[in-house]
Amino acid sequence: MSLWWDDRSLTAAAAPAAMASKPDQPVAEASSPSASGATPPVSQEDLPVSKNADKRAAAKAEKQNKKADKLASRQKAEVPTQSDPSDPLHEKYGDPPRIQSRAVTGRKWTNIISLTPALADQAVLVRGNINAVRGKGNNAFIVLRQGTATAQAILFKDDKTVSKPMVKYASALSRESVVEVEAIVRKVDTKVEACTQSEVELKVIGIHCISRAGPLPFAPADAARSQAELDASEGPDGEGFVGVAQDTRLDNRTLDLRTPANQAIFRVQSAVSQLFRELLLSEGFQEIHTPKLQGGSSEGGAAVFTLQYFGQPGCLAQSPQLFKQMAIMGGMDRVFEVGPVFRAENSMTHRHMTEFTGLDFEMTIHEHYFEVLDVIERLFTYMFDGLHKRWASDLEAIGKQYPFEPFRWLPSGSPHVLRLDFEEAIKILQDNGFPEAQPLEDLSTELERELGKIIKKQHNTDFYIIQRFPMGVRPFYTMPDPEDPKWSNSFDVFMRGEEIISGAQRVHDPELLAEQATKLGVPVESIQSYVDSFKYGAHPHGGAGVGLERVVMLFCGLNNIRKTSLFPRDPKRLAP
Amino acid sequence: MSLWWDDRSLTAAAAPAAMASKPDQPVAEASSPSASGATPPVSQEDLPVSKNADKRAAAKAEKQNKKADKLASRQKAEVPTQSDPSDPLHEKYGDPPRIQSRAVTGRKWTNIISLTPALADQAVLVRGNINAVRGKGNNAFIVLRQGTATAQAILFKDDKTVSKPMVKYASALSRESVVEVEAIVRKVDTKVEACTQSEVELKVIGIHCISRAGPLPFAPADAARSQAELDASEGPDGEGFVGVAQDTRLDNRTLDLRTPANQAIFRVQSAVSQLFRELLLSEGFQEIHTPKLQGGSSEGGAAVFTLQYFGQPGCLAQSPQLFKQMAIMGGMDRVFEVGPVFRAENSMTHRHMTEFTGLDFEMTIHEHYFEVLDVIERLFTYMFDGLHKRWASDLEAIGKQYPFEPFRWLPSGSPHVLRLDFEEAIKILQDNGFPEAQPLEDLSTELERELGKIIKKQHNTDFYIIQRFPMGVRPFYTMPDPEDPKWSNSFDVFMRGEEIISGAQRVHDPELLAEQATKLGVPVESIQSYVDSFKYGAHPHGGAGVGLERVVMLFCGLNNIRKTSLFPRDPKRLAP
Repeated sequence: MSLWWDDRSLTAAAAPAAMASKPDQPVAEASSPSASGATPPVSQEDLPVSKNADKRAAAKAEKQNKKADKLASRQKAEVPTQSDPSDPLHEKYGDPPRIQSRAVTGRKWTNIISLTPALADQAVLVRGNINAVRGKGNNAFIVLRQGTATAQAILFKDDKTVSKPMVKYASALSRESVVEVEAIVRKVDTKVEACTQSEVELKVIGIHCISRAGPLPFAPADAARSQAELDASEGPDGEGFVGVAQDTRLDNRTLDLRTPANQAIFRVQSAVSQLFRELLLSEGFQEIHTPKLQGGSSEGGAAVFTLQYFGQPGCLAQSPQLFKQMAIMGGMDRVFEVGPVFRAENSMTHRHMTEFTGLDFEMTIHEHYFEVLDVIERLFTYMFDGLHKRWASDLEAIGKQYPFEPFRWLPSGSPHVLRLDFEEAIKILQDNGFPEAQPLEDLSTELERELGKIIKKQHNTDFYIIQRFPMGVRPFYTMPDPEDPKWSNSFDVFMRGEEIISGAQRVHDPELLAEQATKLGVPVESIQSYVDSFKYGAHPHGGAGVGLERVVMLFCGLNNIRKTSLFPRDPKRLAP
Repeated sequence: MSLWWDDRSLTAAAAPAAMASKPDQPVAEASSPSASGATPPVSQEDLPVSKNADKRAAAKAEKQNKKADKLASRQKAEVPTQSDPSDPLHEKYGDPPRIQSRAVTGRKWTNIISLTPALADQAVLVRGNINAVRGKGNNAFIVLRQGTATAQAILFKDDKTVSKPMVKYASALSRESVVEVEAIVRKVDTKVEACTQSEVELKVIGIHCISRAGPLPFAPADAARSQAELDASEGPDGEGFVGVAQDTRLDNRTLDLRTPANQAIFRVQSAVSQLFRELLLSEGFQEIHTPKLQGGSSEGGAAVFTLQYFGQPGCLAQSPQLFKQMAIMGGMDRVFEVGPVFRAENSMTHRHMTEFTGLDFEMTIHEHYFEVLDVIERLFTYMFDGLHKRWASDLEAIGKQYPFEPFRWLPSGSPHVLRLDFEEAIKILQDNGFPEAQPLEDLSTELERELGKIIKKQHNTDFYIIQRFPMGVRPFYTMPDPEDPKWSNSFDVFMRGEEIISGAQRVHDPELLAEQATKLGVPVESIQSYVDSFKYGAHPHGGAGVGLERVVMLFCGLNNIRKTSLFPRDPKRLAP
C-alpha cells in the first residue's frame, strides 16, 4: 500500500489544483547539498525579502489561519475523544488518562527512524505527532512524525482489528496531537515518497491520543516548505501554499522548531560544540566556567548590560576574555569555555544577537601566536570533517528547505589552511576593484564579503585566516607586533566571507598592559585584578573566541543567525 | 644527587627547627584518599573555623608578608636580570626580550610531567614557574612547577657549563617567575621526595627568565599546605607555616589556583562536565543553549537579578527550566545544557553561590518518571566510575591537601541505586531520634545531613535518591502523583547527605499547568509563551538539574563550594 495526500486542507485554499500540478518529490531525490550538483545562491531567503512582501505574506497567512481556526473549532465540537463502549474494539482507541507515572509496564516503544523492512510483520508501539491526517469514509491515513522522521500509518475498517468509530476517532485527530499507535509494520511495494520511512507503513491496530493539539498559529508541515515549493504552488489568485514569516515563527518558536530543517539545525549546533570539545580535550585543554556576573564593564565599551548586585553596580560579561586569561595565569595550560556572551548592542542585522554562545579557548604559547592558529586549523578541519561525515543526514535535511552550496575547506597540515596578512588582504581587494580598502582601517562587513568571494574564486575555499591586523583596530590586551607597533599579533577567521573568530596573542606584561589600557581609555582601576594577575609570573599566551551560531549559520549557508539560535535575542525580542 | 630544602625562607620565621623535625614525605605515601586506609572527617576545614582564629591567621600572614615584601624589594635592587657580557657563558642566562611572536624556531619543549628516567641523559627545554629557589655559594637549587608537576633543577658552578654569575642569576630569581630551562635529565639515586618527578633532576645548562614575579600576596607553595602540615609546624611562639585565609585566597585567586589541589579540583570539574556529556550523548541527548536574558522572572519568586533590556524590564534565568521544557515541546526528544544559573539569594553559606554552573537535562518519558531516574543512575555511576578510574591522580592531589573519605556508591542497574520514598525517609529519621521530621514538610539541611549519615551507616552509600516529595514543597510545573495529589512525581538526589539534584515529571497539560501556576502565585501572563507551548501536542516529559560545583565539592568531601568555583560569586563577592 502506498498512499499520500496533501496536508494543506487546514490552512491553504484551493488545494486540488495545486495538488494535481505538484507531483510528490521522493525524499532522497530532493535537492540537497550532497545529492545535488547545482549551486544555488548561498544565502537564499526563505521568506519574501521586502517588508511589503512580508506584510502580504502575513496578511495571507492571517486570513488562512482564521479559516483554519474556524474549521478547527467547528471540528472540535464533533471530535470524538472517547471510544464507543459498545464497540468490541473500544479498548483499542480513545484518549487515555493523563500520563502521570501510574505504572512501569515494561512495554517497549519503537522510534519512527527505526521503522524499516527489517521490522516487517512485527507489532510495534510508536509515539509521535500527527504531521498530517485525512479521513476518507472507512479509511484514515496519518503521517506520524518524530524528530526528522516520518512514517505513514493507515486504518482500514475491517471490523476485526479496525472498527468504523475507530476510523472516525483517528480521522478527527488534530494536527500536531501526540498519539500512541500500536501497529503491524508492513513492507510496501511502492515507496511512500512523502515520508522518510518510505519502505514501510504502519497498519494500525490501536490508537490513543495522549495530548490534543488546539488551533495552531501555523502547522510545522507548512513552515517546512522551501521557497521553491512556495513559489511553485503560487496561483494567479494568490492560492497555494503560504510561507510563515520569521517573526511569526519566532513568536511561536516551539512549533517552528518542529520542522525537519530546524530539528537538523539544532542537531548540527549540538554537533559543533561536541566536535569543538572533542578536539580540544584530545589536545590537553580543560573546560572552565568563568563568571558572567562581573563588577565594572568586562572589556570597556558601552555595549554592556548593567544590573544591581546587592547594592553595588554589576554587569554581564561581554566575553570570557579577561577571565580565561586569568585562568591561564592561574596555572592552567590550555582552557576552553562554552557559554553565553552578552552584548547590549542596539543593532538589528542578520548576524548580530544580544546573547549568543561563545566557544572560547586560551592557551599558553611558547614563542608565536601561530601556535594558536595551528590549533584553529586542526580544530576547524576536524569540525568540518566531522559534520560532513557524522551529520550528513542533518545537513541534507537542512538543504531540503534551505538549499545551500556545500561548504569548502582546505585540509589542515601542510599546505596550510589559507593564511593572509591583513596587508595582503587589502592589496587583493584594491587589485580587484575596491580602492576603498584602507591598509590601517578595519574591513567593513561589505568588504569582508567581497574578499570572501575573491578568495573563493582564487583558492576554492570558504575558510581562511587573516592575520597581523593593524594595532589600531584591536582591543587593548592585544600583543603588538615585535618589529612594528603599527601591527599586532592578531587574527580573524572567516567562513564564507563573514568573521567567525577573533583572536590574538595577548599582552602578558602587566606594565605594557596597563599602558595600552590607559591609551585606549580603559581605566586600569576597573580591571585591576586582571592586570595584577600578570604580576606573579605570566606565561605568554593567546587564544580565540568563536560564535557558535555563526559557525552553524555559515556552514549551512543560512541567511539569518536567528535560524541557528534556539530562542534568539535581539534588541526587539526578549520572548519567548 | 638528591637535595631538598625548605621554601619557607621568604615568608616563614624560624625555619631550621621545623625543618629538622619534619621529615620529607615521599609523594606516593602522603595521605591520600586512595592510599590511606584511615577515614578522616568528610568536611575537614583547611582554615581555622572561628572568626578569631581566622583573624589571628590573617594577622600572622600579614606580618610575614610584610617581611617577605621587604626582603623581596631589598633583593630586587640587587637582582641581576642580564648576563655579564664578559662571561663566556653569557648567552646561557639572562632575561630575553619579551616573547612576542618574533619567530617560529622549531624548538621543542618538554612538559615537566614527562620528566622520567626514560629521558635520562637527554637535553630538554622546559618552561615552568619557580616553585622554590635557593642559592648557596656556587650552587643553586630550583623547584620548577607546571600544573601539578614539579621537578628539581640544579646549577653547580663548573666554569664549563655553569659560571658563577649564572648561579647568581638563578639564585636571585623570585618565586613564581616563569623561566625557560635548558638542561640534561639526570636519573637520581635517592628520590627527590619533594617533587612529583622524584626519579630525575635537571642539570641546568641554560636559564632565562621570561616573566618576573613581583612581591606575592602569598606563595602558592604556602597555600598548598594541608591543615595537618600547618598544625605540625606550629611552635610555642607562633612560628612555623602560616595558612592562607579563604578571602585572601579568593582576592588573589590566580595565585591560589596554582596549588596542586586547585589544579586538580578544576581538572575534576572539567571531568564532571565531560563525563556528563559523554554519557548523555551516548544515550541520544543533544546539547542546547537556552537564553539567560529573559522577560519577567524565570520561575517566579524574588531571587532574580533584574536589568533593563532596551527599555523593557528583563531578568537573568534562575534556571533553564522553562526553556528546556520548551525545547522538548519543540520536538526534541532528549536535551541537555551546561550553563550558568543565576540566583539573587542573599545567603552566605558553604554551599550557595549567586552564580553556578547548571548541568540540566530534560527528556520525553513514555509512562513514568522512573525513566528519568534510570538515566540519572547510569549517568552518575558513569561519572563516579570515570572520575575514580580516569582522574585518580587528580583525586590524589586533592586528598593530599584536603584529606577526604573516598566517596561510596552502589553500582547501577539491578539492584538499583538506593531509592527511598520521601515518606520512608521521614520514617527513618523519626525512628533514629529526629521526631521533628514532618511527613509533608521539606527536609531542613540539617535533617538531610543526618539522613545521609544514617543511610551511609545502613547501606554504605553516599549516593541515593529520595522520590515522591510532597506536592506542597515543589514548584508549580511539577506533575502531581496520579493517586494522591498530596504527593508529586518528583525527586531529589543526594551526595554525602547534601542535595545535588532536583527533578520531576513536569506537567504537560496546559490547563493543569495554568491552574497550578495560579495556585502558587505565578501569574500565567508572565509565562504565557511557556504555557502556550503545551497547547500544540505535548509529550510527557521529565528532567533534572544538577549543580556542577556541588558535585565536585561533595565527591571530594570539600567543605566549601567556593573551592570548586573558578571565580566564585556570593552576595559579598563580585571580583575578581
